[in-house]
Amino acid sequence: MMCARVWRALKPLGTGGRPPAWRRACSRAAASRLDLSGIYPPIATPFTAKEDVDYQKLEENLQKYGTIPFKGLVVQGSNGEYPYLTEEEQVDVVRTVRRSLPADKLLMAGSGCESTRATVQLTERMAAAGADAVLVVTPCFYKGKMDGRALVQHFTKVADSSPVPVVLYNVPANTALELPLDAVVHLSQHPNIVGLKDSGGDITRIGLIVHKTQTQDFQVLAGSAGFLMAAYCVGAVGGVCALANVLGRELCELERLCVSGRWEEARVLQQRLIEPNAAVTRKLGVPALKQAMEWFGYHGGACRSPLQPLTEAETQQLRGEFSSNGWL
Amino acid sequence: MMCARVWRALKPLGTGGRPPAWRRACSRAAASRLDLSGIYPPIATPFTAKEDVDYQKLEENLQKYGTIPFKGLVVQGSNGEYPYLTEEEQVDVVRTVRRSLPADKLLMAGSGCESTRATVQLTERMAAAGADAVLVVTPCFYKGKMDGRALVQHFTKVADSSPVPVVLYNVPANTALELPLDAVVHLSQHPNIVGLKDSGGDITRIGLIVHKTQTQDFQVLAGSAGFLMAAYCVGAVGGVCALANVLGRELCELERLCVSGRWEEARVLQQRLIEPNAAVTRKLGVPALKQAMEWFGYHGGACRSPLQPLTEAETQQLRGEFSSNGWL
Amino acid sequence: MMCARVWRALKPLGTGGRPPAWRRACSRAAASRLDLSGIYPPIATPFTAKEDVDYQKLEENLQKYGTIPFKGLVVQGSNGEYPYLTEEEQVDVVRTVRRSLPADKLLMAGSGCESTRATVQLTERMAAAGADAVLVVTPCFYKGKMDGRALVQHFTKVADSSPVPVVLYNVPANTALELPLDAVVHLSQHPNIVGLKDSGGDITRIGLIVHKTQTQDFQVLAGSAGFLMAAYCVGAVGGVCALANVLGRELCELERLCVSGRWEEARVLQQRLIEPNAAVTRKLGVPALKQAMEWFGYHGGACRSPLQPLTEAETQQLRGEFSSNGWL
Amino acid sequence: MMCARVWRALKPLGTGGRPPAWRRACSRAAASRLDLSGIYPPIATPFTAKEDVDYQKLEENLQKYGTIPFKGLVVQGSNGEYPYLTEEEQVDVVRTVRRSLPADKLLMAGSGCESTRATVQLTERMAAAGADAVLVVTPCFYKGKMDGRALVQHFTKVADSSPVPVVLYNVPANTALELPLDAVVHLSQHPNIVGLKDSGGDITRIGLIVHKTQTQDFQVLAGSAGFLMAAYCVGAVGGVCALANVLGRELCELERLCVSGRWEEARVLQQRLIEPNAAVTRKLGVPALKQAMEWFGYHGGACRSPLQPLTEAETQQLRGEFSSNGWL
Repeated sequence: MMCARVWRALKPLGTGGRPPAWRRACSRAAASRLDLSGIYPPIATPFTAKEDVDYQKLEENLQKYGTIPFKGLVVQGSNGEYPYLTEEEQVDVVRTVRRSLPADKLLMAGSGCESTRATVQLTERMAAAGADAVLVVTPCFYKGKMDGRALVQHFTKVADSSPVPVVLYNVPANTALELPLDAVVHLSQHPNIVGLKDSGGDITRIGLIVHKTQTQDFQVLAGSAGFLMAAYCVGAVGGVCALANVLGRELCELERLCVSGRWEEARVLQQRLIEPNAAVTRKLGVPALKQAMEWFGYHGGACRSPLQPLTEAETQQLRGEFSSNGWL
Repeated sequence: MMCARVWRALKPLGTGGRPPAWRRACSRAAASRLDLSGIYPPIATPFTAKEDVDYQKLEENLQKYGTIPFKGLVVQGSNGEYPYLTEEEQVDVVRTVRRSLPADKLLMAGSGCESTRATVQLTERMAAAGADAVLVVTPCFYKGKMDGRALVQHFTKVADSSPVPVVLYNVPANTALELPLDAVVHLSQHPNIVGLKDSGGDITRIGLIVHKTQTQDFQVLAGSAGFLMAAYCVGAVGGVCALANVLGRELCELERLCVSGRWEEARVLQQRLIEPNAAVTRKLGVPALKQAMEWFGYHGGACRSPLQPLTEAETQQLRGEFSSNGWL
Repeated sequence: MMCARVWRALKPLGTGGRPPAWRRACSRAAASRLDLSGIYPPIATPFTAKEDVDYQKLEENLQKYGTIPFKGLVVQGSNGEYPYLTEEEQVDVVRTVRRSLPADKLLMAGSGCESTRATVQLTERMAAAGADAVLVVTPCFYKGKMDGRALVQHFTKVADSSPVPVVLYNVPANTALELPLDAVVHLSQHPNIVGLKDSGGDITRIGLIVHKTQTQDFQVLAGSAGFLMAAYCVGAVGGVCALANVLGRELCELERLCVSGRWEEARVLQQRLIEPNAAVTRKLGVPALKQAMEWFGYHGGACRSPLQPLTEAETQQLRGEFSSNGWL
Repeated sequence: MMCARVWRALKPLGTGGRPPAWRRACSRAAASRLDLSGIYPPIATPFTAKEDVDYQKLEENLQKYGTIPFKGLVVQGSNGEYPYLTEEEQVDVVRTVRRSLPADKLLMAGSGCESTRATVQLTERMAAAGADAVLVVTPCFYKGKMDGRALVQHFTKVADSSPVPVVLYNVPANTALELPLDAVVHLSQHPNIVGLKDSGGDITRIGLIVHKTQTQDFQVLAGSAGFLMAAYCVGAVGGVCALANVLGRELCELERLCVSGRWEEARVLQQRLIEPNAAVTRKLGVPALKQAMEWFGYHGGACRSPLQPLTEAETQQLRGEFSSNGWL
């Protein structure tokens, strides 16, 4: 694996000063890069009737997730409504999850902000709160200026200073921005960037990223259950899937089938998951995810405003997507 | 003008409890709705070499803007890099501007956040810091769910509780979301929503909004200098224009020509402004705006990361757009 | 006005051989460039119950249009369903219109095909059938390759050989392609390219095109009634408007108000036209245009398949857009 | 397999009159639905220096393709520049290919036009010229009106009257239109519609189409080599791949590996094909495909205008995409 020596030759801009955290740790870390492979639910955040974080219900969900063979949990991903939480709330939830989570489960915490400096600071707080890795979304407000140059600079600075490994996060449905493939390939060479969660669903792109980073021990995670099997097929090592909040055991089963090469069985299971997954993501979003969680024994509840509860017709549609595929 | 009585019949959801701030003020306010007409620069935020807010340079810019017949200033608009400022910084800048600004100039402060509750809170802080009105951008992260229903609900709650009048803010280039026309028309009936800044540039839409809100004393501001004259032509009352940070006097002159019906002269001036405006907005963004400010005697300086400085080629291109139109 | 001499210096590629038609005519033509200013309906094509062209009904529509002060007619524009007509039908309809049309009315015929060679040939046929000018749409199937270079080459070859003046035609709602502004400016220098019909509705772009072609006697026509007044405001000279098939007299009145500087009256009229126009174009398309024609005394009738008749709900919606603005 | 009896109950609109061709043939055809499985090059059309079809060179290409284990050929697909050919040329090329092609190879001919009536006629001509099946692209000019209702109607009429089986063709990169999934599922029930070529690359959609048509013996073909392996993985039966014009043997090898479940080997080969494929399709288009054909011993040559030859820089880029993956 590449370490600081090689990276210094590659990186576009010297940053000077004190060596970054990962560089100090590199001599001991190089031998064992963090293994991301497996399935993660990007957990939802339950709220009370007054829209405060409901830590009690959160704990109860965590208890149930503890019985499923997940690789770990993602906290403060898009499905956690992180843009609606204050920074304090974001960190508190991570701290709470860390306390409940067995030590052998990986905690990946979202720490991406619009500015580089805020992302650097939140990354440090997340590490201090117990995150094993951070998931850093592409900044996107000034999308016309967020080209490869800006994004490479941003993620490099964040990874340089992060105490824990960084996972890139590409989610164009929310950001209306695609992290350019060339930027991903460049960033894959950074010793403290260990992977990518790609929620875009462009399987050609995922295959090419795997291909062009194959010398880097760079790990790609599918960002949605709809293309999980295809992603395994072209070389991904796992998935961060909203649907795992609801059908976690089934997604771990799909993982097992893919990893063991039982593709025919995998296909049958994968196909039954596409519509429920689309319903709780692209079509009806987080309110639908939380509604479905209720049906499957978890605490979902309402979202913070401006996310609205499902209408009656949407609830029926959601139920139909699960029942027509034999899940309800 | 419509006041609380009519609005109560219109609003989709009762909120109960104590009457909102605007409702308590309505008896005295109804007679004199806030007049937004005129030109506003959405001011840039100067930073020190360490990327901290440079209040000294900000004050110097404000001194110069004081000599131009602006209607007021917009603080914490997109060109102020508000997504890169902490909430404390955002409020401090507003407070600083308020101290420098003559009492007869209007201070419009950006207060839009992703969640409704955060927007409500920041709105209150902005009013307390001296804002005469707030500019509330559409929340956009969960864009698939930000339909008319969600947005009407969001803006209604914010306007219900805001101590100062609310201006809607539609900026699809940044949010990748269009505030639906029907939602604008519905919201125009709220007594505490006085107008819209529309940066999309769809002149047909702007004309139709003016038409469909004509009984509401609802005021539309063009969100960019490129279509300012056309917007006046179809019924807008002013503009919030990035280019006013650079060519403020010229934009006030364009306003004067449009308002006094001197369209031939207006057209000549308008046309010379399109390319410089595109350069500092859509094409090269805030870094170009700040570079151009330097050329015209203001403090622009660097942006916060991840916004990058212009390349040499971009700087040349920017200069060309100003010089070929006779401004440099 | 620029003629062949200047153009030779400008054009990127020599074509060699016999001088093109326009060049031969240039000595006599230069003095009097074709004046496009005014309003044109892009006429619809009536069909019989068997979906054949109904020349009888076409003639009756033409009789009625003859009483309205149009500058001329556009035949085989998008509203004429030209992609659904055979080449023979396209030419026959032009020939029929020419016979009915007074000599002082301009006949502009669509002649754009995907390939350059087919466009050259159809242009010649249209001229022979009596077209005074041709309207040439951007080829768009291989849209990823239709950059400025390809489009400049295409339109140059067509204009080089066309016996009649060429009008460029930008209609991104149908082609999913924008004719680049730089290409328009370059092509404006061709002596046989006299103008542009722009249906995109980007008023900033229209203003800039007027500005950058002002030394070329290049004429811009608004491609839709929704932004006709704004287009006049920034320097357009007329409009090709689907809605003129239905409310032709009103659009000519709007033209008169704009041209004579009566902007206040113009605005009132313009605003009442936006919703009916949107209904017969962007929202409900050609089937709605033809339905509305029936209500206003013209022959509209059915479209060729795969265009479907309006549903009952769509018909009600269409009627509402006209009646709520006082037209029905 | 479903035949006319079931379909009659399903179809939305009676068409009346004489039973369609497929219905008459149905009693004998039902037992043996056309098997589409395998790899097809959508062949390019060579031109002479004067841009006429070069039948000599076409034949020479066909001789070489004859040595590769393709399932058949697609003639008049997007890569054949069909929109630039006259109808006569389109049919003549099909007739020529039929003469050269061994009887056991399948000839699939493009026959989609904008209007239903033109598509019906061209479909009949293609069948008469020797096509075993027709590939019918979505009409797209009036894209705002091409919803599921219109497209179901269109394809149903075409399939009702077609003498040969119909394959649906979804190619959003060219049409800027997605054939809705519900329309595909509905149309899969038509006895004369046997499959879909999907060039969009959305693997979730492909998996879902396979899932929802599994009772219909409906066959999905990947429309591009970039996601061929992933498409096999989720249930596609073959591919129509531009790159097969250049690396046909390698794509047949990839097919063999996928079909025989040798996924590890398949992945290695698939990954080396992504960049060359992107170069000859999305990035540089048909001119690049034809250039690459020259390098690999086929006749490619120039495209018809307005498609432009590659620039020198583009040619270098193209070569790089092949050589960096070990193909040149």
